[in-house]
Amino acid sequence: MLVVMQSHATPAQISVVLQAIRDLKLTPHPLPGATRTAIGITGNVGAVDSRTLEVLPGVSELIRVTKPFKLASREMHEADTYVKINPLAGRASDGLGSPSLARPANSETVIGPGTLTMIAGPCSVETETMILRTAEFLMENGVRLMRAGAFKPRTSPYSFQGMGLEGLKILEKARQKTGIGIVTELMDTEHADAVEHSADIIQIGTRNMQNFSLLKRVSLTRKPVLLKRGMSATLEEWLMAAEYVMAGGNYNVILCERGIRSFSDHSRNTLDLSVIPPAKKLSHLPIMVDPSHGTGKRDYVPAMALASLAAGADGLLIEAHPDPDHAASDGAQSLSFEGFKKLLESLKRLAEPLGKRLN
Amino acid sequence: MLVVMQSHATPAQISVVLQAIRDLKLTPHPLPGATRTAIGITGNVGAVDSRTLEVLPGVSELIRVTKPFKLASREMHEADTYVKINPLAGRASDGLGSPSLARPANSETVIGPGTLTMIAGPCSVETETMILRTAEFLMENGVRLMRAGAFKPRTSPYSFQGMGLEGLKILEKARQKTGIGIVTELMDTEHADAVEHSADIIQIGTRNMQNFSLLKRVSLTRKPVLLKRGMSATLEEWLMAAEYVMAGGNYNVILCERGIRSFSDHSRNTLDLSVIPPAKKLSHLPIMVDPSHGTGKRDYVPAMALASLAAGADGLLIEAHPDPDHAASDGAQSLSFEGFKKLLESLKRLAEPLGKRLN
Amino acid sequence: MLVVMQSHATPAQISVVLQAIRDLKLTPHPLPGATRTAIGITGNVGAVDSRTLEVLPGVSELIRVTKPFKLASREMHEADTYVKINPLAGRASDGLGSPSLARPANSETVIGPGTLTMIAGPCSVETETMILRTAEFLMENGVRLMRAGAFKPRTSPYSFQGMGLEGLKILEKARQKTGIGIVTELMDTEHADAVEHSADIIQIGTRNMQNFSLLKRVSLTRKPVLLKRGMSATLEEWLMAAEYVMAGGNYNVILCERGIRSFSDHSRNTLDLSVIPPAKKLSHLPIMVDPSHGTGKRDYVPAMALASLAAGADGLLIEAHPDPDHAASDGAQSLSFEGFKKLLESLKRLAEPLGKRLN
Amino acid sequence: MLVVMQSHATPAQISVVLQAIRDLKLTPHPLPGATRTAIGITGNVGAVDSRTLEVLPGVSELIRVTKPFKLASREMHEADTYVKINPLAGRASDGLGSPSLARPANSETVIGPGTLTMIAGPCSVETETMILRTAEFLMENGVRLMRAGAFKPRTSPYSFQGMGLEGLKILEKARQKTGIGIVTELMDTEHADAVEHSADIIQIGTRNMQNFSLLKRVSLTRKPVLLKRGMSATLEEWLMAAEYVMAGGNYNVILCERGIRSFSDHSRNTLDLSVIPPAKKLSHLPIMVDPSHGTGKRDYVPAMALASLAAGADGLLIEAHPDPDHAASDGAQSLSFEGFKKLLESLKRLAEPLGKRLN
Repeated sequence: MLVVMQSHATPAQISVVLQAIRDLKLTPHPLPGATRTAIGITGNVGAVDSRTLEVLPGVSELIRVTKPFKLASREMHEADTYVKINPLAGRASDGLGSPSLARPANSETVIGPGTLTMIAGPCSVETETMILRTAEFLMENGVRLMRAGAFKPRTSPYSFQGMGLEGLKILEKARQKTGIGIVTELMDTEHADAVEHSADIIQIGTRNMQNFSLLKRVSLTRKPVLLKRGMSATLEEWLMAAEYVMAGGNYNVILCERGIRSFSDHSRNTLDLSVIPPAKKLSHLPIMVDPSHGTGKRDYVPAMALASLAAGADGLLIEAHPDPDHAASDGAQSLSFEGFKKLLESLKRLAEPLGKRLN
Repeated sequence: MLVVMQSHATPAQISVVLQAIRDLKLTPHPLPGATRTAIGITGNVGAVDSRTLEVLPGVSELIRVTKPFKLASREMHEADTYVKINPLAGRASDGLGSPSLARPANSETVIGPGTLTMIAGPCSVETETMILRTAEFLMENGVRLMRAGAFKPRTSPYSFQGMGLEGLKILEKARQKTGIGIVTELMDTEHADAVEHSADIIQIGTRNMQNFSLLKRVSLTRKPVLLKRGMSATLEEWLMAAEYVMAGGNYNVILCERGIRSFSDHSRNTLDLSVIPPAKKLSHLPIMVDPSHGTGKRDYVPAMALASLAAGADGLLIEAHPDPDHAASDGAQSLSFEGFKKLLESLKRLAEPLGKRLN
Repeated sequence: MLVVMQSHATPAQISVVLQAIRDLKLTPHPLPGATRTAIGITGNVGAVDSRTLEVLPGVSELIRVTKPFKLASREMHEADTYVKINPLAGRASDGLGSPSLARPANSETVIGPGTLTMIAGPCSVETETMILRTAEFLMENGVRLMRAGAFKPRTSPYSFQGMGLEGLKILEKARQKTGIGIVTELMDTEHADAVEHSADIIQIGTRNMQNFSLLKRVSLTRKPVLLKRGMSATLEEWLMAAEYVMAGGNYNVILCERGIRSFSDHSRNTLDLSVIPPAKKLSHLPIMVDPSHGTGKRDYVPAMALASLAAGADGLLIEAHPDPDHAASDGAQSLSFEGFKKLLESLKRLAEPLGKRLN
Repeated sequence: MLVVMQSHATPAQISVVLQAIRDLKLTPHPLPGATRTAIGITGNVGAVDSRTLEVLPGVSELIRVTKPFKLASREMHEADTYVKINPLAGRASDGLGSPSLARPANSETVIGPGTLTMIAGPCSVETETMILRTAEFLMENGVRLMRAGAFKPRTSPYSFQGMGLEGLKILEKARQKTGIGIVTELMDTEHADAVEHSADIIQIGTRNMQNFSLLKRVSLTRKPVLLKRGMSATLEEWLMAAEYVMAGGNYNVILCERGIRSFSDHSRNTLDLSVIPPAKKLSHLPIMVDPSHGTGKRDYVPAMALASLAAGADGLLIEAHPDPDHAASDGAQSLSFEGFKKLLESLKRLAEPLGKRLN
């Protein structure tokens, strides 16, 4: 349920409504907007007599939200959500010194409609050298967010499981040196503090999309969450997973399509670009696409990256590696730096007629 | 197996090779190229001693084709196939008089890389008026191929099954009046002659992709075949279906992706755009996309049409209807004329940076 | 819609109702039952004023059928359908002489609840010798229906396509010599007369489940139809395909589950035994299972055959071959005769506690 | 890789081999058998010169394991694994007093081939009363393992999330009072100690099948693990998840099929019984089936339970509830006690001809 306040409602009136909601044993979620504030209500709203709230001063109207997801729904939050990343803000206390590469005064990246935000990098952190080389390459080419896994979910217990905490340290160094923002996966609650500290965006992987304990844990962090779609998740289940993160108070969720499981065997997964328009219709959250995992094959990544942009994606996750043929994991789907630069050029050309700008 | 002739091989040498292949109880398929001729061989090639053919005058080399599809494979036919449509060529004897709308001297449409060919129109032929209105609207907007079903595959025996032969007559009139090319579905061998006569492109529907008797029948027609992918067909099975048509002598096959079956329920089918790059890699045939059936929802068609173009499609099948909300079938996924015109504009803007031109 | 007549309604009263339905431009389907007659109505029943029929003498009540399938639904036809096969009835005029193996006076096989009907044999007719050997083996072991394809749907145009009409002749000889009933696939309308003549049950394959022209054609035959589920057909679509056959007047439809397409790769298809209980709930038609195609691997067939019986199947289609390792098609999923006999023994033991008897 | 020792190899010889393996920086897993010991080796075995180990005294042969799963594979461990549960063993120190219902001297349940082990109970712990009532009902009917969730993975953050630690206490009381064994789900590492303490079998749910951090954590517990198949997991991925648990030292893994995601919509999931024979072929681990989640509908559970038994399952998980229509979760798929008793009778009748005995 959503309480829409009048445009001239006072903070005091809003406070009264918030308290009235709490008195009903429900949870209020204030959603300030450009012209007026709305207050989402979660909990067992079925039994609420709407008149209790409607009569309060400053209340314009009450809207029942018909979807099982509330905070993630466009019904409750009509305007698009923009997620802001500022890798260097508040990092002075890192003790790592100031970045050697000067960043523009406004180093903020804003993810959402109107732009295409690029996140690129290797599947996993392998060495400090390759991470620094990648970070520098990306910043030189205007890509301000780097992906790389320190903790790797691997099908086999005998495969390389990632460098762990040491990998996080390497990522922090790369940010410190280049100013690049870090996107890295959190696999369990145990490492939540460490990943929250090191990352600018916390990635939740496809296999953990319904790891509800983990979702609740990241709902308590202050970092945006990139939520990959589960391999066999419906759109509704995906938005319900986002709802877990938002219900805990973290509203900065970025959806990421990365391919679903189907009978189709020409690619590693079946990249479901057709999820973008309904996701945009049902939800206000930004949505990205990962064509590297979606296709599993380097040759097919550029075409699907362009298609993602045309389909309305707000960003792309691309695996790029200085030496893809010797990558510790997922080399077959990683672009070389040269291949990535060519893709960037194509994306820039395509973005303009679509009314988008590369971030 | 593929016999590559030397570039200066004479017609007589080629004839000798063709006969030698027939003598081995195999079937030769001459494939003339820009600089030299190749000869595909189908049949039980496993037992052939390659030296029998290698020693013949004019033979450059023998290549074993590793895919189960031969004629459809890029291994055997490296250059892209362009399918040519000329709706008015050889129709003078129709007795329907000359077209009232003059067409340019070269009214040929060429389907293949470098262009995006639009095919649009209603799901089914409903009345002569609406078909004429649609044909005129399309021609005015530069779209020279119209889709409309006279025979409709319907899940229920109690649903409208199409106007049948009467529908074909209406389509012929539309071509005669406007010069538009006709794309219409053939559902059974019984109506093959009639559909071959009326259509400029014969459509094989998703439910008939492995109706092998029907594939063999259309392999004998002289009209290009638009082969929709089966709802649960792998890429290999799809190319094998194309192979059925080509093995019978009809090399003008256009593939058409229209969505596959998956668990995903946000759209009618799961449009598998990621099939385009591997289809292009494995085969030389042009490939189109039908986002109307792929999504099943009008609102999602434009985004997926743009994405298809960006992914490398050579054409689009779009359902457009003068009055979608009162369509006899599939109204929910049909664009209005106004919606279609807007989409055309977006496609034109996007085609240019992709090095494509709208057909 | 369903008109339920009173139990003492006279034939004259029934005739009046039938005519009244026809006068409404609808189609009546008389469904005689043990205690009273019901009359199914198909066509555009939405506009019918039910009082028109309710007031007629002998009418007990009118029931609206809520499913899109009518004749196939249990709502309209509550009692289980039993399909009767009598391979020798009315065949005297074949001119093939009398069968050399005497059959019991009552050679009829009844397919439906309470029994498990076995249909076994090779994938395709290969030679007269192997077919006769198989027919004799089956009859000796109490199996009175043999499956074998004369027309084979093959993914590749270069694979063995079946012996065609010659194969049908061989099957007829096997029946004539042994009295065995013949189950064989019809792939197109062209061969409908020939297959209707030769077969005791006409099989419609999985790839043709939505070949609506073929369904309409077999709806006009007088032979029972074994309707395999399409690879990606929902239960409703399957019952709608049965409805096509029944709407044309052929009420003897046997459903056959043969595995669906999923991401799962441990077997050729994913045998969906869980479709049996809902199919039984929604429809009165008998249902069989084909674990040979379902699994694609000989070793897994017996376990899945037993599971099919336990899940409530009314019959089994099993591929058995005198020499599976040299079969012309599908050898990997065919049981040897020895393996088949062992399976028969296991099935017999299991049938008893399930209240079933092997047919 | 697997080192097979000679049947008369001494403990000292075995020790030498174990040390030699460790010296190669690999991990040895001693697998004692009835007649001789084998030693599994995991780690990077690719580089090992097999002669280093072959020449050691007592070594019979070295076998390369071709599957990516090693400890879970039948190649490495030929004999079936039997998992033993003894709910009361070593619980004296619980301080809860002795059980009020005397259990037979040998209260051990052995899960594996030859038996069908029943695990039943409600979806979630709701109240102490209902849990006790269920435990007593089950023990009276010979069912010695109860399932009930204290921690519930729910799609919506607003749904009942389980009673948590309080729920575990209730389950412990039920065991203490009745002697019943407890099967309950662990959702995160945080509650691993508590669940290990309270449970006799730790359940890993379908959504956590590839929660590798959780798998590693339970690999360190001393309780058997019931590993549900992921909704879209291939058999190989499932066995790799089992491998995670075994690689950490916990060899007591029970597989549990619970339905996969497919396009099919007649049941909640598509119960894949055909996975049982290949799972048994590739692995020595016992396998159970959960037809309650598999079908999602009470009416379909008995048929699929019988089918599971016939397909070769070693056990069943059945949701049963004293008042299914008022269950806090999953009521639609829960059997009433009466329905469950009827199912038990049917299962007993069917088990005998299959050479199985109900546990």
